[in-house]
Amino acid sequence: MTAPVPFIRDAWYAVAASTEVGRALLAREILGQRVVIYRTEAGLPVVLRDRCAHRFAPLSMGERVGDTVECPYHGMRYAPDGACVRVPGQSRIPPVARVTSYATLERYGLVFAWMDETVPADPARLVAIPQVEAPGWAVSRGYLRFAARWTNILDNLVDPAHTGFVHKRTIGSRGSDDVPITATDEHGDVVCRRWVNGEPPVPMMQRFLGHDRPMDRWQVYRLSPPCVSSVDFGAVEAGQPHDDAAMDAAPYRTISYAFLTPETAHTTHYFAFQLRNIAVDDPAVTHEFETLYQATFDEDRVLLEAIEREEMADPDAVPVMLASDAGVARLRRLLAKRGASMTR
Amino acid sequence: MTAPVPFIRDAWYAVAASTEVGRALLAREILGQRVVIYRTEAGLPVVLRDRCAHRFAPLSMGERVGDTVECPYHGMRYAPDGACVRVPGQSRIPPVARVTSYATLERYGLVFAWMDETVPADPARLVAIPQVEAPGWAVSRGYLRFAARWTNILDNLVDPAHTGFVHKRTIGSRGSDDVPITATDEHGDVVCRRWVNGEPPVPMMQRFLGHDRPMDRWQVYRLSPPCVSSVDFGAVEAGQPHDDAAMDAAPYRTISYAFLTPETAHTTHYFAFQLRNIAVDDPAVTHEFETLYQATFDEDRVLLEAIEREEMADPDAVPVMLASDAGVARLRRLLAKRGASMTR
Amino acid sequence: MTAPVPFIRDAWYAVAASTEVGRALLAREILGQRVVIYRTEAGLPVVLRDRCAHRFAPLSMGERVGDTVECPYHGMRYAPDGACVRVPGQSRIPPVARVTSYATLERYGLVFAWMDETVPADPARLVAIPQVEAPGWAVSRGYLRFAARWTNILDNLVDPAHTGFVHKRTIGSRGSDDVPITATDEHGDVVCRRWVNGEPPVPMMQRFLGHDRPMDRWQVYRLSPPCVSSVDFGAVEAGQPHDDAAMDAAPYRTISYAFLTPETAHTTHYFAFQLRNIAVDDPAVTHEFETLYQATFDEDRVLLEAIEREEMADPDAVPVMLASDAGVARLRRLLAKRGASMTR
Repeated sequence: MTAPVPFIRDAWYAVAASTEVGRALLAREILGQRVVIYRTEAGLPVVLRDRCAHRFAPLSMGERVGDTVECPYHGMRYAPDGACVRVPGQSRIPPVARVTSYATLERYGLVFAWMDETVPADPARLVAIPQVEAPGWAVSRGYLRFAARWTNILDNLVDPAHTGFVHKRTIGSRGSDDVPITATDEHGDVVCRRWVNGEPPVPMMQRFLGHDRPMDRWQVYRLSPPCVSSVDFGAVEAGQPHDDAAMDAAPYRTISYAFLTPETAHTTHYFAFQLRNIAVDDPAVTHEFETLYQATFDEDRVLLEAIEREEMADPDAVPVMLASDAGVARLRRLLAKRGASMTR
Repeated sequence: MTAPVPFIRDAWYAVAASTEVGRALLAREILGQRVVIYRTEAGLPVVLRDRCAHRFAPLSMGERVGDTVECPYHGMRYAPDGACVRVPGQSRIPPVARVTSYATLERYGLVFAWMDETVPADPARLVAIPQVEAPGWAVSRGYLRFAARWTNILDNLVDPAHTGFVHKRTIGSRGSDDVPITATDEHGDVVCRRWVNGEPPVPMMQRFLGHDRPMDRWQVYRLSPPCVSSVDFGAVEAGQPHDDAAMDAAPYRTISYAFLTPETAHTTHYFAFQLRNIAVDDPAVTHEFETLYQATFDEDRVLLEAIEREEMADPDAVPVMLASDAGVARLRRLLAKRGASMTR
Repeated sequence: MTAPVPFIRDAWYAVAASTEVGRALLAREILGQRVVIYRTEAGLPVVLRDRCAHRFAPLSMGERVGDTVECPYHGMRYAPDGACVRVPGQSRIPPVARVTSYATLERYGLVFAWMDETVPADPARLVAIPQVEAPGWAVSRGYLRFAARWTNILDNLVDPAHTGFVHKRTIGSRGSDDVPITATDEHGDVVCRRWVNGEPPVPMMQRFLGHDRPMDRWQVYRLSPPCVSSVDFGAVEAGQPHDDAAMDAAPYRTISYAFLTPETAHTTHYFAFQLRNIAVDDPAVTHEFETLYQATFDEDRVLLEAIEREEMADPDAVPVMLASDAGVARLRRLLAKRGASMTR
């Protein structure tokens, strides 16, 4: 399965950080389509196809006028719903003069768009992350652009086996190489977990916990198709139960979210944030987390971009699957199912 | 009609400014074909296909020897008519050893080539511009390369409606948005005109006229297929007749010529000059006009290059036509007719 | 025959200078395939396909561990024979988990690989060059990458007629333009020779011979398909016999070897060395030769890259053949024969 799979359009995709979206026009490519993003006077994000219906000029090169966008070529204006509301020098507006408007939703510091105008947008289908607004948690943020297809990045996010090799200079530890990983489907998500028991905490944990006595550590990689990944790391005292209550009360826990949005068939936006329950009021730690995760994702990026070049050079190559690809195999089955309902 | 239309070869195309063409070899791509341009000892411009018949070396990388061009690889020499006249080490010259030579014509400070060797070149088919050599007129000049298909640039040149939007920072004025434009065919040209009556002159005119009282202003956009555009601007006292005699005697008039030459299907040479009947002896004004027009054409260039990228990404997109596209529609019909006699 | 001919795989190709190959991993593209090159602890060169069988990561981005290469993504290790010898977290190694290993040979300061895994590698098929290890000869070396197809570079190397034009600023002399060249097949090689008799030595020879009296000079261009070229220059006293014994005893002789290795269909590695029988103990002369030959090959490169652009723009163009193309014609026939036994 090395040729890029078609996009799954009926989903919420992160298209920008909330802080990027204001009254100015922001141009971006999403799922192979150029869009223009801005905010109405009331503060609602707007995502329109960035192409005037008349002569295909990018609307993002024009001006926002009130809540409309004015085309730079002949001054046609489009409302937030995509309808043309003005054609200079012409009183009748042709009904075909419109651009696609995508439903939007703003949460978790991100602006999301529902990229399928043929399927009603359902806010309930956005992943729920209670910790973002809950007390006791701090947030750090990042963004990268990968010159790699989205599916290979997804695979990477349900693949704990790569951590000890790709990330040996950042977050990896090779001690856990041989602890088995369990991959399961849970309510449509692919979940890979393992517990590494009775071992000293990794260096990062030691620093915030202030000790190095053996603990039980978990790693839970969750992928909510098509585009949301979370990686939950933490440690409890050795011998404690391994259940939700213990994890919620753990002295050290981080949950790293990644929202992937295909830019083109061969490039991907990677919006990320990390939750942590330690040093929550310390901006220096927030900055440190942002630096660390950016460096870590960059290790993935460099490797996945090299793989993308190889996949493009030889689209018919067939990979050899390993035992550690259990999560990948489950994910690919789920994506294939979604593909059956793809709108194109 | 968004796929690039085939080139119309049986026409005079500007290939270089006269000042660019001398005894040195000049390489350029014209209608998808690399040519080498130089001047004979008698001063006549020569345009040859820039590819040796033997092993395809660019002749422009060789040397001019007398009036011939010597190939840099094995020293074959070609005369201005394209015939090979020397093969080192070989007395018989194969009759197939020749390169295409294009008929040339030099006028208006430009070198033109007739790009169809199968149709006799007719000097009478070059557009007549009596003012270039007439007294009372000054000339300013410019050149740009557009990474945009020639047909979209042509459309832009029979489309007065874009001026108030694309050129609002240079020559545009939005006051005239709602004055209707008349598009007609005249002797095979597409002509779009309007008169804006009883309004104060635009700032440029005010400066040279020295007053701001209401005048009658004209705009005449003329396109002589396939490749020559002129835009005639001027003003007469309010209430005067709107005829040729009044325009010829007008206190302010500029005529801007553009000679488009496709470089490739997606790029275009844009040779331009402007005639003016004001401050004809002032080189500072000439310089000012050159700067102003270059900036103006550059506004078109930036926009048309963005549109080109969109057209290339989605060649099947169909534009919505507006009332202001009357000139464009006429032009496309004329080009389609010429296409019927295209040589390839 | 302007479309690139398929690669001939069953041959020895220079892939690196010996000095480039050590314990570090070297990535290079050879015959359209990325390979990773390194040396075992015993000093033997290894050439493996640079693509992990699992998820296509470049092995060259990983690490050498002992004599194996470890994949940067999940730590799979490959032995010099291409077999996978370790999969972290998995005891059974899938038999399909292997990469192609190419047979290697090291000679003349170069590492060669036999690029066809379906045909046994035969060391006897490497060209024999007794002078490299013989006393009385000095060696100078160089490398260039040509953005040009290998076949056009080969043609250039059996084409003495180009020397007076392409190399007029370096080694060329136009005096010999009209001396006929004899092209023959000798034991599967194409050989073009000429003797220029009773003329003063070229400037380079005069300098090392210390006189300018007339001599008999030879030029022998030999091409051993598919990829090895030698150019033998020298001079004997005028009137001496023109046989091997005289040439071996000549007071001035240089033999320039070029080993061409296609990188892609449109780019080529050019490994070169020059033998000389003059000033053999003078490193300044070695340096001077390296500079001179690099400049000379660069003249070919610039021209052949321009021709490559033309060939790619117009793949159907048919060259006009000249009398001086006798060697080229013989070479093309030999390559076509080899093509009949090409493995792909």
